Amino acid sequence: MAKYKNGRVTLPTDRNMDEKILEIRELWGADAIRNSDGTSLSEDVMRRFEKVYATYLTTRADLEWGRLHPEELSQVYLMTPHTTAKTETLEIYLLKGYYEEEIQINKLEDPVRWWEVIDRSTGEVVPPERWSWDFDKGTVTIKAEKWHVYTVTFLAFQIWDAVCMYNHLINNWGDKPHDFPYDVYNPLTREHVLQFLKDWLRDNPRPDVVRFTTFFYQFTLIYDDKKREKIVEWFGYSGSVNPRLLEDFEKEYGYRLRPEDIVRQGWHNGAFCVPTRQFLDYMDFVQCFVTKLAKQCVDLVHAAGKEAMMFFGDHWIGTEPYGKYWGEIGLDAIVGSVGDGVTCRMIADVPNVKYREGRFLPYFFPDTFHPGGDPTGEANTNWLAARRSICRSPLDRIGYGGYLGLAAEFPDFVARVTEICDEFREIYDKIGGAKPFTPKFKVAILNSWGKARRWQTTMVAHAKTYKQFYPYIGIVEALCGMPVDVDFISFDEVRESGVPDDVRVLLNYGAAGTSWSGGENWLDQKLLCAVREFVNSGGGFLGIGEPSAIQHQGRFFQLADVLGVDKEVGMTLIYTKYTEQLRESHFIVDGLGRDFDFGGGTDDVYAINDDTANLVVEKGCVKIAANNFGNGRAVYISGLPYNVRNARLLLTSIYWAGGIEGDIKKSWFSENIYTECNAYPDSGWFCVLNNSYETQKTTVYKGDGLNVNVELAPMGIKWFAM
Amino acid sequence: MAKYKNGRVTLPTDRNMDEKILEIRELWGADAIRNSDGTSLSEDVMRRFEKVYATYLTTRADLEWGRLHPEELSQVYLMTPHTTAKTETLEIYLLKGYYEEEIQINKLEDPVRWWEVIDRSTGEVVPPERWSWDFDKGTVTIKAEKWHVYTVTFLAFQIWDAVCMYNHLINNWGDKPHDFPYDVYNPLTREHVLQFLKDWLRDNPRPDVVRFTTFFYQFTLIYDDKKREKIVEWFGYSGSVNPRLLEDFEKEYGYRLRPEDIVRQGWHNGAFCVPTRQFLDYMDFVQCFVTKLAKQCVDLVHAAGKEAMMFFGDHWIGTEPYGKYWGEIGLDAIVGSVGDGVTCRMIADVPNVKYREGRFLPYFFPDTFHPGGDPTGEANTNWLAARRSICRSPLDRIGYGGYLGLAAEFPDFVARVTEICDEFREIYDKIGGAKPFTPKFKVAILNSWGKARRWQTTMVAHAKTYKQFYPYIGIVEALCGMPVDVDFISFDEVRESGVPDDVRVLLNYGAAGTSWSGGENWLDQKLLCAVREFVNSGGGFLGIGEPSAIQHQGRFFQLADVLGVDKEVGMTLIYTKYTEQLRESHFIVDGLGRDFDFGGGTDDVYAINDDTANLVVEKGCVKIAANNFGNGRAVYISGLPYNVRNARLLLTSIYWAGGIEGDIKKSWFSENIYTECNAYPDSGWFCVLNNSYETQKTTVYKGDGLNVNVELAPMGIKWFAM
Repeated sequence: MAKYKNGRVTLPTDRNMDEKILEIRELWGADAIRNSDGTSLSEDVMRRFEKVYATYLTTRADLEWGRLHPEELSQVYLMTPHTTAKTETLEIYLLKGYYEEEIQINKLEDPVRWWEVIDRSTGEVVPPERWSWDFDKGTVTIKAEKWHVYTVTFLAFQIWDAVCMYNHLINNWGDKPHDFPYDVYNPLTREHVLQFLKDWLRDNPRPDVVRFTTFFYQFTLIYDDKKREKIVEWFGYSGSVNPRLLEDFEKEYGYRLRPEDIVRQGWHNGAFCVPTRQFLDYMDFVQCFVTKLAKQCVDLVHAAGKEAMMFFGDHWIGTEPYGKYWGEIGLDAIVGSVGDGVTCRMIADVPNVKYREGRFLPYFFPDTFHPGGDPTGEANTNWLAARRSICRSPLDRIGYGGYLGLAAEFPDFVARVTEICDEFREIYDKIGGAKPFTPKFKVAILNSWGKARRWQTTMVAHAKTYKQFYPYIGIVEALCGMPVDVDFISFDEVRESGVPDDVRVLLNYGAAGTSWSGGENWLDQKLLCAVREFVNSGGGFLGIGEPSAIQHQGRFFQLADVLGVDKEVGMTLIYTKYTEQLRESHFIVDGLGRDFDFGGGTDDVYAINDDTANLVVEKGCVKIAANNFGNGRAVYISGLPYNVRNARLLLTSIYWAGGIEGDIKKSWFSENIYTECNAYPDSGWFCVLNNSYETQKTTVYKGDGLNVNVELAPMGIKWFAM
Repeated sequence: MAKYKNGRVTLPTDRNMDEKILEIRELWGADAIRNSDGTSLSEDVMRRFEKVYATYLTTRADLEWGRLHPEELSQVYLMTPHTTAKTETLEIYLLKGYYEEEIQINKLEDPVRWWEVIDRSTGEVVPPERWSWDFDKGTVTIKAEKWHVYTVTFLAFQIWDAVCMYNHLINNWGDKPHDFPYDVYNPLTREHVLQFLKDWLRDNPRPDVVRFTTFFYQFTLIYDDKKREKIVEWFGYSGSVNPRLLEDFEKEYGYRLRPEDIVRQGWHNGAFCVPTRQFLDYMDFVQCFVTKLAKQCVDLVHAAGKEAMMFFGDHWIGTEPYGKYWGEIGLDAIVGSVGDGVTCRMIADVPNVKYREGRFLPYFFPDTFHPGGDPTGEANTNWLAARRSICRSPLDRIGYGGYLGLAAEFPDFVARVTEICDEFREIYDKIGGAKPFTPKFKVAILNSWGKARRWQTTMVAHAKTYKQFYPYIGIVEALCGMPVDVDFISFDEVRESGVPDDVRVLLNYGAAGTSWSGGENWLDQKLLCAVREFVNSGGGFLGIGEPSAIQHQGRFFQLADVLGVDKEVGMTLIYTKYTEQLRESHFIVDGLGRDFDFGGGTDDVYAINDDTANLVVEKGCVKIAANNFGNGRAVYISGLPYNVRNARLLLTSIYWAGGIEGDIKKSWFSENIYTECNAYPDSGWFCVLNNSYETQKTTVYKGDGLNVNVELAPMGIKWFAM
């Protein structure tokens, strides 16, 4: 494997370990190095790497600037908790439940113009005559309807950068000064930020790559009065609010955004909310602004002869790597944290950059690298998840973060990463830029966001698992490494143009009312008719959880006719359900048993007609069902957390719904569910992955229908010429 | 116990066993006897009983009448399944999925006037110009919008009485003729039914009690094309439809009922649906009619010198024992089947009759009384459940059903029932009509139905358990035998008059959107304000499952402020939840542990503020919480199937919410959760029940604060003079 010994790997660094750095550089074949916080590299070490990365913070690096210009700090619209009027005079303390070292009420702007008091009992805006404010006390007093519930939405300055705050509190940095986040929408700050970058580029000739962390607006991250995370939303635009921006928005769009358009009942337009027209406009406006200014920064970096790389995190709001304007920024590279397969794929699929880098887990931090810690185990888990994804869409580079000195104390870990780096380079080399084999159709995930949230569905805090989306997050995790082509389309697209011709199977999933399932979109007959037309003509429809769900005219799943199942929400209990598990063999579950982990997915689903094939029934409720609709087919699954059995279930469901189940053994198919096969006809190789920690034997059915038996070491990968 | 040896017990009978009947009469102290189907008593036997019951069927006894007057049969509005238009011409076969031996399309009335075609995609009625019917084929053909979904609602005759059909099919009666159910709304039939009763009374002088089974309209019971139960709703008014009745309704109410008002999206206005004004009007109209005619029947019975008893089942629709008109019928007695404690209480609390009789389980049928069957075990389960209820509100009589000969073959069973009969008579006698002790307040169950569905909440088929209401049915089961006063009030009452003064704790429970939880009622500020005012002034609020649930303005539980908890439905995932289980002791759970069976109750509930006491937390979600609201208190519980621990949890929750937890040990409180105490100050006795099959020791805290230790035999009851 000597030929894969070098390149495509970025090292973090550490203090006083020049010799060790070079030793690890040799083992891992690293060609790039980046400064971690609080370290700085010797010129001697730097010389040994092809590239040196420098981290650059655009909107918080200059402590002085923030301190001197409090009126130019980043702002956010915050909403008070719902507060019940127990008397006719209701006083609400605005910062109740917020962390006052992070947040400060904006007392510079006119509350009548910029704040909003809402009677949440009726949904009506309370006119300014009925409320007043006291800046000193930080309160609003409302002439209330007794027993009604009120909220106040107010403008606040962010007086502590959220990421700085996070690091500060976690690491007990004590009296280390707080970084102020300043808002580039203010012309003075904008000019300063550009000048600061120019100066920095002039003063820092050595780095080859400027790694922006990131650009201008932090994703939503608000702490509570106990210094804990209160609101976190990796897709949140709350931190990009600025009265001047809102005024300019009004000029451009011809209507004024209400504070409610930003805070939206306290949901802050999280990605789970079906987006409103207003919020989509707002996102678009912020993106346009961010794109233009980010381009100016990137141009300056290029003018200094360096590459510009964006970290896909922290202040990424407005960049939207899958958005309309992304390409215009002109970045050379993107780097992001690989938490699992799907976040790896989210980075790897980003268009319009020269290369994409994944920062792997574990970080070299003391939470893992301590006696009794299992960094090698964490690295294996992370690599097995990422490798599936990489075989479908390779990252161009991998790397690690944290303090290299910590890792160096774990020789097992260093040795394992040595293997991982080689394995990565071999995969990259063997694929050689070729497109992996896929059946001749696409699976399209249908939700409110479509392409804009490619590989970003059902997430709140990037790669963090929540009980409520555990039944769903496994779907994209399974798909990211599955030998099928995956697209993401929005309800709007289908409404306007129908289902695209190259899509064979539509996939709609999620909890009722969320942007993923679709909520009120499913009252739109244009959408429903387009989907029915598509399936009836031979398309496949795959529904997981609560697809097409909204109560209307006697149905909860609006596509119950297509799916053959509906959910019992209490109104149809008078109907006796005869939902018996199909005893016969069925392609979808054959070889998988009937004992799946649905991750607490949707319950109380039942067959609405005798034709529905109830493949798995638990306690009288359907967990997996298959149905015919005209010339097409539909599959319903209760929930799909990621595991190898569920991933295979999803694959067979896709083949069956797509009506090509006969082709599966002509499709580079590896029979053992712990294994997967990917073929690269253009480069002439195919590989078989062992996704488990045990030895596996499998039969691989090649594209020509012939098969070959393969034995794989634990976590192994084997390559074969085609 | 010799003094309790006689009376208050009704025997079923059987063929050719006169001697055995008299032997069992002696053992059980039976004073009444009734004919079971297919048996008839000798005069000699009858003489030995104080009362002889005769079953009387009003609307199906005369086979000839039904055969000769097909146009006078009972009718029903049926809806076809939702059917998708795959072409622009959609033909729907009306009886698809129905059982054609039960149902026949009414071809005598004009479909344009009486049928309704609805586009379920839009909810719009399809005008008659766009559809036509073919009586011969039994179809409707619609000029459809392609891919829209349609239903047809049509009038049908019931050509086989549903209860007759049930017995016929279950017992394989082969070519035994089918009973036709005829509709007394037709004047001719009405006159015939009255005359038939007069003739019968004349020809049957012997019976003392005419047991109507029941009056005129069968509860909704529709079979499918596989001869299985399709729709069953013990509260359903579907079977009382008649075009002449609907015409008269229009004259009286000034508006015309639509077919949709009856079938309601296919839900047939099941009791789980929040009732519409139209359906309440319809129920009222049917009740008025039924009341008047039932009174005529009862008057005839009285004129013949007999008592009139109503069986609370079968054709009871329109009688509504807890309705406004019930008393006007003038019945002497009611009898009903005791499936559990709550159905026992449902019978026992019926007002305006001289006596109430419970028919206990098991029925003397071969399904239980066969070698290997456990009739004694079934009798014990039934008795333990009913006894709790009887101690709160005694039945006046008990009895058994089926064929006595079968029971006679099980001497253990006969012996156990001997004990039960004695135990029942002792309870009845010791209570002596006295009101049992209760704390000085009422618990009121708040839902859409209020008093009209006293002890009938969260049921579909009377005493049958469904997975979907298993978390709720235990609430009334617990309450029916609990030493508290229970009332049932409707949202309308609270809206109009506030919470009644004698109510200390309000209880709202059920699944979101159902009539029990309340659905859209919780958008009504009059209701919400009344409840908040009540709790704030010192009242208690107990929410179980999804109380006050409807998504509106950022809240799912509209009373989240009162409860201190809300449910995560996806929109607020961006908020980090810190729902940690309270470690300290709390009155509600002290002595009960924290490991309850919530019966699959509501999940994803979290505390909305730091003040909420999270008493039980599972997987990060609140299962039991306690909260203060002004001077009042609220308790949230995820779900409450019946068991002794949950019953105690409900009791402590009521005391705590009512703010009188300090009084519990001055309230005839039996400490051991397997036991309960009831005191009757006016009769001077108190009793302690052992609700378990094991010996129990307990400490009983009397009304004066003193306590006494009691040991109880398995299933035992002990009486003490106060």
